[in-house]
Amino acid sequence: MSFREDGAAALDWAARYLERVGDYPVLAQVEPGEIRARLPASPPETGEPFADVLRDLDEILLPGITHWQSPRFFAYFSVSASEPGILAELLAATLNSVAFLWRTSPASTELESLTLDWTAQLLGLPQGWHGHIEDTASTSTLAALAAARETTGRNVVVCSEHAHSSVDKAARLLGLELRKVAGDGEYRLRAEELDLADVAAVVATVGTTSTASVDPVPAIADACAEAGAWLHVDAAYAGSAWVCPELRWSQRGVERADSLVVNAHKWLFTPMDCSLLWSSRPDDLRRAFSLVPEYLRTSDEADSLSDYGPALGRRFRSLKLWAVLRCYGRDGLQARIREAVRLAELFEGWVRDEPGWEVCAPRHFSLVCFRREASDDENEQIVERVNRSGELFLSHTRLDDRYVLRLAIGNERTGEEDVRRAWAALRQA
Amino acid sequence: MSFREDGAAALDWAARYLERVGDYPVLAQVEPGEIRARLPASPPETGEPFADVLRDLDEILLPGITHWQSPRFFAYFSVSASEPGILAELLAATLNSVAFLWRTSPASTELESLTLDWTAQLLGLPQGWHGHIEDTASTSTLAALAAARETTGRNVVVCSEHAHSSVDKAARLLGLELRKVAGDGEYRLRAEELDLADVAAVVATVGTTSTASVDPVPAIADACAEAGAWLHVDAAYAGSAWVCPELRWSQRGVERADSLVVNAHKWLFTPMDCSLLWSSRPDDLRRAFSLVPEYLRTSDEADSLSDYGPALGRRFRSLKLWAVLRCYGRDGLQARIREAVRLAELFEGWVRDEPGWEVCAPRHFSLVCFRREASDDENEQIVERVNRSGELFLSHTRLDDRYVLRLAIGNERTGEEDVRRAWAALRQA
Repeated sequence: MSFREDGAAALDWAARYLERVGDYPVLAQVEPGEIRARLPASPPETGEPFADVLRDLDEILLPGITHWQSPRFFAYFSVSASEPGILAELLAATLNSVAFLWRTSPASTELESLTLDWTAQLLGLPQGWHGHIEDTASTSTLAALAAARETTGRNVVVCSEHAHSSVDKAARLLGLELRKVAGDGEYRLRAEELDLADVAAVVATVGTTSTASVDPVPAIADACAEAGAWLHVDAAYAGSAWVCPELRWSQRGVERADSLVVNAHKWLFTPMDCSLLWSSRPDDLRRAFSLVPEYLRTSDEADSLSDYGPALGRRFRSLKLWAVLRCYGRDGLQARIREAVRLAELFEGWVRDEPGWEVCAPRHFSLVCFRREASDDENEQIVERVNRSGELFLSHTRLDDRYVLRLAIGNERTGEEDVRRAWAALRQA
Repeated sequence: MSFREDGAAALDWAARYLERVGDYPVLAQVEPGEIRARLPASPPETGEPFADVLRDLDEILLPGITHWQSPRFFAYFSVSASEPGILAELLAATLNSVAFLWRTSPASTELESLTLDWTAQLLGLPQGWHGHIEDTASTSTLAALAAARETTGRNVVVCSEHAHSSVDKAARLLGLELRKVAGDGEYRLRAEELDLADVAAVVATVGTTSTASVDPVPAIADACAEAGAWLHVDAAYAGSAWVCPELRWSQRGVERADSLVVNAHKWLFTPMDCSLLWSSRPDDLRRAFSLVPEYLRTSDEADSLSDYGPALGRRFRSLKLWAVLRCYGRDGLQARIREAVRLAELFEGWVRDEPGWEVCAPRHFSLVCFRREASDDENEQIVERVNRSGELFLSHTRLDDRYVLRLAIGNERTGEEDVRRAWAALRQA
């Protein structure tokens, strides 16, 4: 193959895709098995041109793609792979560094530490925390809870009933008992009911998956301090909002956390996957993972980031984060976060002002929870109808045993017109 | 930014890098902290052009990069990010699919299953195994051992003393007791000593990290079957060799495995990260991870691959594997694997024929273990000297309490001339 020629074709494909992504049906309009059935059941015996791969991507795979880059993707948490981030992934794949030791890629290891420090500054986190990158918040939380277990010698984890399922998964892997605390009327962990005597860790959430509610971190931090429990803060989605000072009300108490996860691939315009894990107790985190006994450590040894998490091999993930932070700058990140919040506020207002519709939870950040004042079935049908139309894609949750629609804004291409189209489609359905 | 313009510059950077990668010192010639010190301590307030990122990549980061793509990278296991794989990563980042449920990216989920089936066919694995992609072998092994624990209700893992450290890490995370069995004279697990009465799983290795030795999988499979223990085969490196029928002697018994990991990012020309995990017992694997109770499952439900491992969010990793399999075909993969083995054989012969040097372990696949007939110190100095020269990069191991050099061939750019240069540099040092 000719890397330059095929590369130009791939780049052109990517550019055209991004130019047209708003025109595709957001949710893939296919049945299970349909895409696979159109592809050969066996691999080719001899090599094919890269152009054939591009052609099949276009003709066969594209209809089976749910367009996370669409400006009308409002499901789960809406994300963006920004252009600098995409190009940095090309560069990272070209270098193909495997940074399991410092020496196997000094630049990757040091840029990872630096970009985590940069991001900490942008978000207003305490100085001196140790940061590194994991693939997903599931892994970051797994790592934090492993450190909590190792450090406290205890086997219980506490979180709110609204915490993310990754806490369940991590607790199960680690063999920890998980206690779920009921939420209050605004879907926040009830801190007054915490009894942490035998507890290894509490996972507090800033920006829950269902409603983006914010747990009372200061009170939880008090309880953790008193009981000697590890405080892990899951701000996978909402943590990026802290780049805006006016949204830092939600950061109160986080400075007392033992560990914190923020997913740059959620609301910091970085392609999947790039989960940022900070810890104020890096030695404890390392002790849970490092296979080098402490008595063999020397102080002049360079940090190997694979000592802080489950995986050994590590991609050059910091390159894309670095590209985004540099090309957007603090201003650019703030402007994008603020625009998403503004659009969510706008949508919330429309719902509030429309008879027959209701807002179902306090709006935080860029997520609106709402429903039609009607049966669960009817609300479910609305979601199915708009998703099937391809006009937009949104998801739902259950709150107080009711079916609730969620509109999550976060793609950097989303404009007021997209939100307006979404609202029109919802009212029609 | 202009995606097309900046993209063309990034692509040109990548093309030039690949054209010149053989000219760079293989191991980064920097001191810890040196790269970081050259970068600003704080992020920019306002956005900068992407061209500045490319410039700093060139001027500041490049000297801190250890060139895994160099044809004279012979350390650890030598890997390649092939050109189709690199371009596919650009496309995957552009699409930014997050395939945690089937519907969130049907094409990603179905292509992942298909490419794992394709690879199974290429490697001659049994039909019908369930395959999916994890980031690294550490995670694949973690997932397999979690399934073993869940399925057997037991808490002991057995592996050879030559098994990879990822087994230690996974056992620690899962709270399993790890029993290491001594190796025989050729660094293979001694199967006759296995007592598996209370054992959840045995990890057998095909292609150990130190010497690429092959554990006696048929005998281990017998012992596992008798004791009801899970058999996990770690063929992270050597599994790719099975694309060549003449190397399938090392696959004997693997057809009886409960799970198998092969890293496509090791010797299957796929960029980091792409670890392939198959299981002949997918329901047991899913039971260890899925948070959906079995009684809520419906048979018409499409498979969600996040149910088979620790992470929820999933990149579109199959796209790069698909691009490689298509552009290389069976023939192309075989030719590359055979050339690496041929070069290793050649190098082994040179060592064997040279007075004062010795081959230290049976050569398997494309890894040669050797040393100068001299003190450990002298051998260590040879490694340090050649690595510092930048001419090549190789790593070492300890065998029978002796310092042993390892030359691992696997980069697709490596030619006879590169191996010849390496041998000349080693003899000079």
